[in-house]
Amino acid sequence: MKKRIVLALGGNALQKNGESTAEAQKKVAESVGEIVAELAQKYEVILAHGNGPQVGNILIHEENAATEKAPAMPLETAVAMSQGQIGYWLSQAINNAFIARGKNAKVVTVVSQVVVDKEDPAFKNPSKPIGQFYTEAEAKKIAKERNWTVKEDAGRGWRRVVPSPKPVDIVEKNSIIEMVEDGIIVIAAGGGGIPVYRTKVLKRLKGIDAVIDKDFAAEKLAELTKADVFVSVTAVPNVFINYGLPTQEKLETVKAKEIDNYKKYGYFKAGSMLPKVEAASEFARRGGIGIITDIDNLKDALDGKAGTIIIK
Amino acid sequence: MKKRIVLALGGNALQKNGESTAEAQKKVAESVGEIVAELAQKYEVILAHGNGPQVGNILIHEENAATEKAPAMPLETAVAMSQGQIGYWLSQAINNAFIARGKNAKVVTVVSQVVVDKEDPAFKNPSKPIGQFYTEAEAKKIAKERNWTVKEDAGRGWRRVVPSPKPVDIVEKNSIIEMVEDGIIVIAAGGGGIPVYRTKVLKRLKGIDAVIDKDFAAEKLAELTKADVFVSVTAVPNVFINYGLPTQEKLETVKAKEIDNYKKYGYFKAGSMLPKVEAASEFARRGGIGIITDIDNLKDALDGKAGTIIIK
Repeated sequence: MKKRIVLALGGNALQKNGESTAEAQKKVAESVGEIVAELAQKYEVILAHGNGPQVGNILIHEENAATEKAPAMPLETAVAMSQGQIGYWLSQAINNAFIARGKNAKVVTVVSQVVVDKEDPAFKNPSKPIGQFYTEAEAKKIAKERNWTVKEDAGRGWRRVVPSPKPVDIVEKNSIIEMVEDGIIVIAAGGGGIPVYRTKVLKRLKGIDAVIDKDFAAEKLAELTKADVFVSVTAVPNVFINYGLPTQEKLETVKAKEIDNYKKYGYFKAGSMLPKVEAASEFARRGGIGIITDIDNLKDALDGKAGTIIIK
Repeated sequence: MKKRIVLALGGNALQKNGESTAEAQKKVAESVGEIVAELAQKYEVILAHGNGPQVGNILIHEENAATEKAPAMPLETAVAMSQGQIGYWLSQAINNAFIARGKNAKVVTVVSQVVVDKEDPAFKNPSKPIGQFYTEAEAKKIAKERNWTVKEDAGRGWRRVVPSPKPVDIVEKNSIIEMVEDGIIVIAAGGGGIPVYRTKVLKRLKGIDAVIDKDFAAEKLAELTKADVFVSVTAVPNVFINYGLPTQEKLETVKAKEIDNYKKYGYFKAGSMLPKVEAASEFARRGGIGIITDIDNLKDALDGKAGTIIIK
């Protein structure tokens, strides 16, 4: 039986040298397609991806060109739009990598709703900057009109900030499991998923403006689909401690507990390596194998010969 | 065994009284969710939908607010975005209709690529107006810059026109069949599908700017998934001949051949009822049942008690 792996790909990874046209991003997607086609020979592959720059651009367009007849879509719907966009590029690339091998791929991008808890403390402290930059005056005016929280962003201007709650469930999980068992390569939980919560009394699903970290969402996807391996695919081959210092240490196979220790002492950068090691070590704690590596070392890392491999 | 039905829903249907905010469209989607939840008790349901006003608004935003760093997405990618958007609204509505019944739905929106023939004569005669209106001078300038075809649109201004080729295949068809057999309610071929063609030598999939008629795409979906019934859900309970005239005739059960006759004499309005009767009678000619009716009569029509029912 094939082992099941969940790959979490960064949204930035599709924008090589910052090139953000559809053509440029499709070109990068092709190399992802090649790798997935290779891996699919040996593994059941589920692909999750980020959407940072893509949903940012969608929001810029939606907000700047909104009219009464063509109103701006809210963030939660913009995430759904980015899932369609990036999912299309990735599935076409995987299709084409199979075609080049004389085969037909079964690939499906699932528009995915990820459930968050309305009581998550993140909702009291919106912290994730998204969309375009405004002057202070503009930002404060828009914040009032649209009930947004805005903050100054590292000297670059004012931006909307939204909550970044933890994923607790994935609405489409059972369907995704059946699809994977049918041999379908599934692309899911794009951009961390469309954030939804369950209403108190009726338990209905309702979208909410938030950004779910893509590594946490992908880890949840790995957990719910009972995957064997979770890989956070990033720009570096390994996690390093004290990178660039004489005390630099490359992490190869480590235990989740060791990661906790490094974390306690602040070795991982928030918003960058921290969510990746947290997601991978969470997956390891639950008995799976969590890997952090780059795309070039992915195959070797799955064979235990490269990357940072986190175990229980 | 449950019969399999494909419903083709208009994109306009979600914008009641022209209201185009996400909230307003989600509200309309709720009633679609209710009907799909009802039908799913008796039928395997596959839902296709249009995206006319939605993709139009996406293009307006993309084109008017494009910058070098945040370039406009091309039409084919905008269709993918609209599939994410509308698919999210519809699947959430179906999820909620099941939740109200104390059940869990298995619903998946599939980002769908629909294959067209690059040699389709439609590519020589772009005819489908799309996106925003321009002055003649603006339109001609943009047409030159972006290699667009532009035309004057019924005295309302100048617009881009794109080809409307016929669908010949659906890339995700085999996965969709397996999903339906697993009991999943599938939303697919949104907006007529993302238009792609196969390159000549390598047979790779490649996106192309075009608009595929949503009724033709949904009929192709019904055909490929071996559905029993194809329903084009529209604003009227029946197809009428000579509507409003003393010779008015309501079509109930009719043969595809009779439809061909009416068509020959120009009884159906191009771009409105014509593609619906063409799609439904094509499906009937292939041995299925083609229905045209509105949402209120949908259940009765499936029982043979309402709507225009086209048979071989």
